[in-house]
Amino acid sequence: MHNFTWNNPTALIFGRDTVKELESPLKASGIKGVLLVYGGKGTFKSGAYEQVTDMLKRAGITFSDVNDVKPNPLIGKVREGVARVKAGGIDAIMPIGGGSAFDTAKAIAAGAKYSGDVWDFYAGKAKIADAMPIYGVLTASASSSEVNCISVISNPETQDKISMSSPALYPKISVIDPSFQFTLPQKQTVYGGVDIIAHVLERVLDGDDESALMDEQSYALIRTMMGVIPALIDDPKDYDARADYAMAGMMAHSGFLSLGRKTRGDFSSHKLGHAISLLYGAAHGASLSVVMPAWSRYLYEENPEPFARLGEGVFGIYEGEDEDRALEAIESLEDFFKEINAPTTLRELGLKEDDIEKLAENACKLLPYGSLKVLDAEDVKEIYKLAY
Amino acid sequence: MHNFTWNNPTALIFGRDTVKELESPLKASGIKGVLLVYGGKGTFKSGAYEQVTDMLKRAGITFSDVNDVKPNPLIGKVREGVARVKAGGIDAIMPIGGGSAFDTAKAIAAGAKYSGDVWDFYAGKAKIADAMPIYGVLTASASSSEVNCISVISNPETQDKISMSSPALYPKISVIDPSFQFTLPQKQTVYGGVDIIAHVLERVLDGDDESALMDEQSYALIRTMMGVIPALIDDPKDYDARADYAMAGMMAHSGFLSLGRKTRGDFSSHKLGHAISLLYGAAHGASLSVVMPAWSRYLYEENPEPFARLGEGVFGIYEGEDEDRALEAIESLEDFFKEINAPTTLRELGLKEDDIEKLAENACKLLPYGSLKVLDAEDVKEIYKLAY
Repeated sequence: MHNFTWNNPTALIFGRDTVKELESPLKASGIKGVLLVYGGKGTFKSGAYEQVTDMLKRAGITFSDVNDVKPNPLIGKVREGVARVKAGGIDAIMPIGGGSAFDTAKAIAAGAKYSGDVWDFYAGKAKIADAMPIYGVLTASASSSEVNCISVISNPETQDKISMSSPALYPKISVIDPSFQFTLPQKQTVYGGVDIIAHVLERVLDGDDESALMDEQSYALIRTMMGVIPALIDDPKDYDARADYAMAGMMAHSGFLSLGRKTRGDFSSHKLGHAISLLYGAAHGASLSVVMPAWSRYLYEENPEPFARLGEGVFGIYEGEDEDRALEAIESLEDFFKEINAPTTLRELGLKEDDIEKLAENACKLLPYGSLKVLDAEDVKEIYKLAY
Repeated sequence: MHNFTWNNPTALIFGRDTVKELESPLKASGIKGVLLVYGGKGTFKSGAYEQVTDMLKRAGITFSDVNDVKPNPLIGKVREGVARVKAGGIDAIMPIGGGSAFDTAKAIAAGAKYSGDVWDFYAGKAKIADAMPIYGVLTASASSSEVNCISVISNPETQDKISMSSPALYPKISVIDPSFQFTLPQKQTVYGGVDIIAHVLERVLDGDDESALMDEQSYALIRTMMGVIPALIDDPKDYDARADYAMAGMMAHSGFLSLGRKTRGDFSSHKLGHAISLLYGAAHGASLSVVMPAWSRYLYEENPEPFARLGEGVFGIYEGEDEDRALEAIESLEDFFKEINAPTTLRELGLKEDDIEKLAENACKLLPYGSLKVLDAEDVKEIYKLAY
């Protein structure tokens, strides 16, 4: 196990009808005005918006809204929020939504305390020194943004989608009420689930085998997700399945499963997927169910061992040589993605073979990345070809 | 899954040669003098004492010692520490050791800010309002005291061993260097391991079956411990095994595995074990390897389901009726305890059949407890009989 430090200050309030429990800590912190940051209809449909604004009214806290935050959230919306906060009357940022709302809220929280343009943080031109406090209400699990200090923002001008982190960006409190997720479209439940599984896979497949415990924890999380996603396709209002999904989604990318690993994870699949989302608007999870198996197939012959262990821990594959078990594991994963109607080829996303060049060009901008294998431009192109 | 809140502020520094990383946060917090709280020879043998005092000297921080803290630590030692702090010159408490040192340090930290007698907190006569900051260095894993806000202290005058908790008692920072545990006596590695397994069992066997995820996480932790304890009997300096042991020991009783459960756990075995330690000086872990199987045998026919699930998740027992699988799981657990030379009967601890009466009398003082089954005086006696 590798050395690590861990200090996650985010407080969680988890469960049914728990938005009201925010009232007392908000008042205790002397907060008088908040900026609500959210997407669109889903926020109302889930009941979250009403519960939040009722709570704020009871607490005597004013609020204004930045809405229409998109999946793969944009820097323009962040700048709009920053301007609103700088105009005054706001003491805290309150995302209501999933990763997009939280990531946007974090960017606003940092931008509001900075004199330059907020994109500087993502472009690596400035470091976050301070941020406004964030109190969030989660309505869609997948990103772990509710418990981590990461923010991923896209910039259409520069065709970048960049992930940035700072300890100042941990939410003070996140409310996770799984019942807000009853009304999510099925596709979002599926793609969010793929994203959660990918976050875990990218850790157990980083090429490190030093900690049986952390691997076992990861396999347990994937197995749970493989039970929970089909259960929710069947019954979107299965509370216990939603709660397990929300817990798994919270743990997967909180950093906890990286503890003691050689790296924080091998996030090549996320990088390769980001290009697909950015250029062709694919849902984040859909890009991952396409890329993860292709990345795995490209690498497993050279590195069969972590895939073979995955086969054992997740799919109960004990027979055969490492290489055979590895391939069987990858096929089982692909079969699972098909079973839940997640795409596994670029073709299914509507891409043409000619598009691979453009994808590769974009995904190569951030090279090198990867830890199981550090990728180069040739690798990137080959993986997209396999994904096609 | 049941509603919960979670907010664990303890920062972890984990890994080899990490004591030195305490210097900078101690200086940043303006700490000028600390009270070192530890047991005896083990603290020196592990190398921890030397590393800590070297670090303090470099930092220009003075220290004084309260040592000879015993397993099942005593209120007398706590009072000694409180008096020392009240005499002045100390800004923080620094346990070096396992649960006993940490539990004593927490008691001192609270007692030093209280005008009455520190036992009042354990007797339920006073509540902790404030405590001195705690910076700890772990040299023996098992209790999770390094990451929780619990303190268990024994009072020989009243023949009580009482567990108490307060959010003020979370350590600020805990340093966990697994290599300090290379020099632990084999018995302590085994008994600590039993304690860790018991902390998990007492959660998965609380009668709640709402969260597949939290159960899976727990089973994964037990399976890991079952690999790690024999590995350490074989080679006490196996770093990766020590690291997994330390991580598992940290997670097991941190509260994390209780999240979403109906109760924080069914700690009957710990209560029944406490009486054995208190009256007959049995090692804490040894009392648990005796009591857990007896408690399980006493209850499983009425509640086979959680034991059957345990059999599946930990021992791979899939065949047969719930009741048969439950019994097989209990037998497998007992076999494992025997394999690692942990006692499974009161007789092995040197007790006589006549002692059961006295044990039961002591263990009944805190009744009622238990959640899978709420125990009464008759139950307590029957479990001890089975344990004999």
